[in-house]
Order: sequence, then C-alpha cells, then structure tokens
Amino acid sequence: MSDNETLVDELLAGKHRALARVITKIENRSPGYRDLVSQLHEHTGDAEVIGITGSPGAGKSTLVDKMAAEYRDRGETVGVIAIDPSSPFTGGAVLGDRIRMASNRGDMDVFFRSMSARGSLGGLSTATTDAVKALDAFGKDKIIVETVGAGQNEIEIVKTADTVAVLVPPGSGDDVQMLKAGILEIADIFVVNKADMDGADRTVKELREMVHMQDSAAMAGHHGAGALASDDETEDDDEDGWEPAIVETVAKTGEGVDEFLATLADHAEWLVETGELEAQERQRYTAEIRTLLREDTASLLAEEIDARGGLEGFVDDLVARETDPYTVADELIEPLEECVRDRREE
Amino acid sequence: MSDNETLVDELLAGKHRALARVITKIENRSPGYRDLVSQLHEHTGDAEVIGITGSPGAGKSTLVDKMAAEYRDRGETVGVIAIDPSSPFTGGAVLGDRIRMASNRGDMDVFFRSMSARGSLGGLSTATTDAVKALDAFGKDKIIVETVGAGQNEIEIVKTADTVAVLVPPGSGDDVQMLKAGILEIADIFVVNKADMDGADRTVKELREMVHMQDSAAMAGHHGAGALASDDETEDDDEDGWEPAIVETVAKTGEGVDEFLATLADHAEWLVETGELEAQERQRYTAEIRTLLREDTASLLAEEIDARGGLEGFVDDLVARETDPYTVADELIEPLEECVRDRREE
Repeated sequence: MSDNETLVDELLAGKHRALARVITKIENRSPGYRDLVSQLHEHTGDAEVIGITGSPGAGKSTLVDKMAAEYRDRGETVGVIAIDPSSPFTGGAVLGDRIRMASNRGDMDVFFRSMSARGSLGGLSTATTDAVKALDAFGKDKIIVETVGAGQNEIEIVKTADTVAVLVPPGSGDDVQMLKAGILEIADIFVVNKADMDGADRTVKELREMVHMQDSAAMAGHHGAGALASDDETEDDDEDGWEPAIVETVAKTGEGVDEFLATLADHAEWLVETGELEAQERQRYTAEIRTLLREDTASLLAEEIDARGGLEGFVDDLVARETDPYTVADELIEPLEECVRDRREE
Repeated sequence: MSDNETLVDELLAGKHRALARVITKIENRSPGYRDLVSQLHEHTGDAEVIGITGSPGAGKSTLVDKMAAEYRDRGETVGVIAIDPSSPFTGGAVLGDRIRMASNRGDMDVFFRSMSARGSLGGLSTATTDAVKALDAFGKDKIIVETVGAGQNEIEIVKTADTVAVLVPPGSGDDVQMLKAGILEIADIFVVNKADMDGADRTVKELREMVHMQDSAAMAGHHGAGALASDDETEDDDEDGWEPAIVETVAKTGEGVDEFLATLADHAEWLVETGELEAQERQRYTAEIRTLLREDTASLLAEEIDARGGLEGFVDDLVARETDPYTVADELIEPLEECVRDRREE
C-alpha cells in the first residue's frame, strides 16, 4: 500500500523509473497492482492515445519511431507500448535496441516499453489499458500503442486507442482481403507504408473500394464478440461522419509522416467536435468494467471448481453418461445464483 | 417438460421432424432447451463427428455433399450441420437447395441443417455441440460439422469434432500463410481440393513444409485463448503420434473422395487405439462445462448489473474520475465473492 503510494507519487512527479516499475507490476499483476491503477485513474484523461496495427513487415516500428521523433521535435512527450500477443516473453531485442536508440538521442521523454501475452487475451488488453493509464497519468502527451501482429488479439488491444491506424504493405490484393477479418471496422486511418514500392497505387485503390464497403463489412464484423462485450462492439462500429482516411508513407525516409500526423490530428479534432471522444471513452469504460468482471468471475469460478475438487469427477460421470454438462453447470452455478438473489430480496 | 419428453421420444424413435424441432429449440435457446439436451446426453457417444473448415470458395459444401452421398451408398446415416458465424440469419438459400437436392434423391437419411450466429461465439459453439448431440442421440452414424468461413469462430466451432479436415484451395502461398492463424493446430487432415487446378502441387508442398513446423506453430497458437479455455487449448495441441495427413480431391468429380474417407477412417481408428478419443472427449466436456459456466455467470452478472440500474451511473463517475474501473468491478463482484466464501465456510 504505502509502497504503492510512493510509487504513484514518483510516477506523478515524472520519474521514468517509477513508470517502468508500475507497468511491470501491471504486466505481472503483482499484488496491489489493482490498487495502483485505481490511484492512477483520477490523473488520466489528458493524453492522446494512438493505436498502430498491421501485418508483420508492414513497417510499424519504423513508422512509430519516426512518429515519436517528430512529436518530440514539436516538444510533445511520447510513450510507446509495443504489444506482442503471440509471444509469452516480455522485453525482447527489438525493443531493447529501440530503447537504446532513443537514449542515444539523449531523449528520455520517448518512453518505449514492450508487453507480451502472459495469459488470456482479456488479461493482455486489460494490462494494455492499465499501462496506457500509467503513461497518461505520468503526463505523456502522445501514447502510441503498437501491436506486433494483426490478429484478433491485436484488434482487441488496439481498441484501447482513441485513433486507430492500420498499416498496409503494398502488394497483392490478398493483403487487403486479409484486412476484412475485423481490422477494417476499427481503422480510422489506413497507412499504405513503403508507398515507394510497386503495387502501392493498387493497394490504395483497393483500400478505397473497401472503405466504401465498410458498413456491410462492419455488420459482418459484429459476431464472434464475447457476450459481455457484444453491445460495446456494436457501438464501436457506429462512427458515422468519419470515413477512414488513406495516407501513403515511406517510414524509412520519413516521407508522408507529416501528412499522417496531420490526419491523426484531424481525427483527434473530429473526435472532440462530434462528442465521439467521450462516447468512445464511455464505451471503453463499459467494456473495461465488463472485462474486469469477466476476469473476476472466471477466478471466482476457478476457486469454486477447486473447492469442489476440480472437474475430473464431473467429467468421469459425463463420460459414463451418468450426468450431462448442463446439469453439472447448474450444480456449480446454482449456489452463486441463490446467493445473489437472496441478497437482492433482503 | 412433458412436451420435451414427447419430443425426445420422437427423436429417439427416428423422426426427422422431431430432430429438426429439437435443433431449432437449441438454436433459439427456447425455454426448456437445456432440459432437452440434458435428456439427450445419455443417448450420445456412438456417432463419428467430422469437422470441415476452410476459406470460402475452397469447395466445402461440394465435398460435404459428396461425402454424404458416399457414406449413404455404404449404408451409413449422415447428419450435416453447416455453421455460418458471420451471418445473423439461419437457414439460407444454399442449404435450402441442398436439402431439396437430398430429398430429390429420395434420401431422407442425409439430414442437412444450417445454424447461424445468434449472439456470442460461445453461444454458437455451445449450440453446435448441442445440435451434434441431437444428431448423435438420433442415431446418425456420421455427423459432419461444416463451417462456412475459416476464422477464429470457425476454429472454435469445428473443435467439437473428433476429426478436423481443413480444405485448402490451390493457389498462392498466401493462402497457406493465412492458415497459420490457428487453423494449422487443429487440422488432422488437410484437403487440397480442386487438385486439378494449377498450383495444387505447390500448395501440397507448402503444406508439407508447414506440417513439419506445426509444433512451433502450436506453441504460438496457445495465446489469445480465453482464460477459462486455456488449459483445454494446451491439451488440444498435444496430439503426438498423428501427423496431419494431406490428401488431394476434386470434389466436383468426386476424385480423391474415397481416399479422403479412408484417411478419415484411419484417424478415427488412431483416436480409438491411442485413447486419444476419450482424452478428446474429456477435454471437450471440460471445455463444455467451462463455457456453460462462463455463459451462466455472464447472465448472472447481467442480472446483477440490471439490478444496479445498469452501468451508466458507474460510467458517469468514471468519466468524472470520481471512481475507477477496478473499484467499480470490486463493488459489483464482492457480493458474489462473499456469497461463495460464506457458503464454503458453512
């Protein structure tokens, strides 16, 4: 507790070491991390959170480095969280190099940090949300959430951002086809990086066509969301008035980065003017509460199952056809239901 | 109840109309559907369940029709459930046509049925599992679960099968690359359909290379599983002793279908001999119980949230930074936790 308070004070005082320690506690779910995040929440709300996703090799890290450098030149502080849901390990050489690169510039205000899958997807997106809060409370002006891949996990994670940019490498139509799987619905901006490569124009053209099909794609995109999240999903797609922008960049040379940042600024402005920013914030909080509740009930159930000596015995009876899954589930859940209802009637 | 009993009796008596009505009740989660499935469970366990997935246009429905026809010629009864997680609607022209086709053959023992996403993924895979039970209890020898797409949802759904066949259309390496996203880990058999097309040999070659990388792919595949499901996931990949087979078919002409069915039979035999069949059954039951518990607690929480007048008020306080998500979650979950713990101490 008091250790937490010191940590929070140091973080709010702008100590990067405290920030790093807080994020580590969040990532490891160390004892007291919940209380830590609770204390940080009231200090959040000022940062602009940008999500960057896209298939491996699209040039995300190069673009993010250029973005960070440009924001720094403009005198804004930057925090970067790179997420790799597919890796069980944290840190990693790539990020290590990038941190060094940053400090070689003698620039300690670009804070790089990587986070990886420790367990469930819910766990990682919660950890990302919490880490963003730490950077926000710390006072970073721009927070960039960069995902390594572009799968369903990354989509969930990048949703913690106000503005989502999807990088698309120039190439065959297949690349654009692959976007259909949920990424199209969350993209506020498409960045065709490596725009100097062959096929860039074609990719841009295909993206334009897709953007005009977005609504129907968004409809298809709803299903497959966890029951608890589904209504938030519905709202996520409800972004009338902003048609995903398409910008071309060559991250290596920095070409087009200014235009990209300008488009990001346009979207940030649009979010405020339309009230979409608060709407999104409310959606995120709702989703956040539901995710936390889902995680809490999951562990509560795990507890209950352990207390019953695990599921093995139940499974034996199922295999022997002496009972059935619904009866087992009822047997396990009914006590909880009774508790809740009794309490409500009191 | 008594209505249910009549329905169950008629289903067990081999009345297809009762079977169809039971599956409709399952799909709509009509009152009493749980009790219905509970009654069916003891009559299950004799069918061979085959899952067929693969990207759209791979020729799944054509192959499934050929499989069904061939099984019928061998005097085995067949049930087909086609799942479309991306569609909110049920039935659909395609399936309608196929049912007609079946009955034109005067063959009522090929029972076609389509199911679609009514809500959550969990909901649909539970409904699929239950529908398979209905077909199993009915006495179908072979049950084919066919998915329309090949996304994460389809992967979850097709896991209800004993043997999973993944259809791969011949073409660019990109198609095979796309398989990496979770499908590789669940494939017992790869079917290169339209094997008469250009690029078929190359696709087969690429698949062989992938199969040898499977173990590492499987490692990466674990993450992103829901917390409750994760340990089942781990076991799913643990299929030592069966290297995914690769067969070539031309579903349109029926070419290679015999070899495919022979490979399916080989895998079914392997499942029994290695005890993997029961191991899988146990894994599925464990996953089934956990999924049901997750759904039950989800609705229990929804109830609790309604009783508290919804989340809006909490979200207002969050926006005003007067509270934080963890505190809200604790406030909502603590009563449940207390209930469970008090009961345990009794």
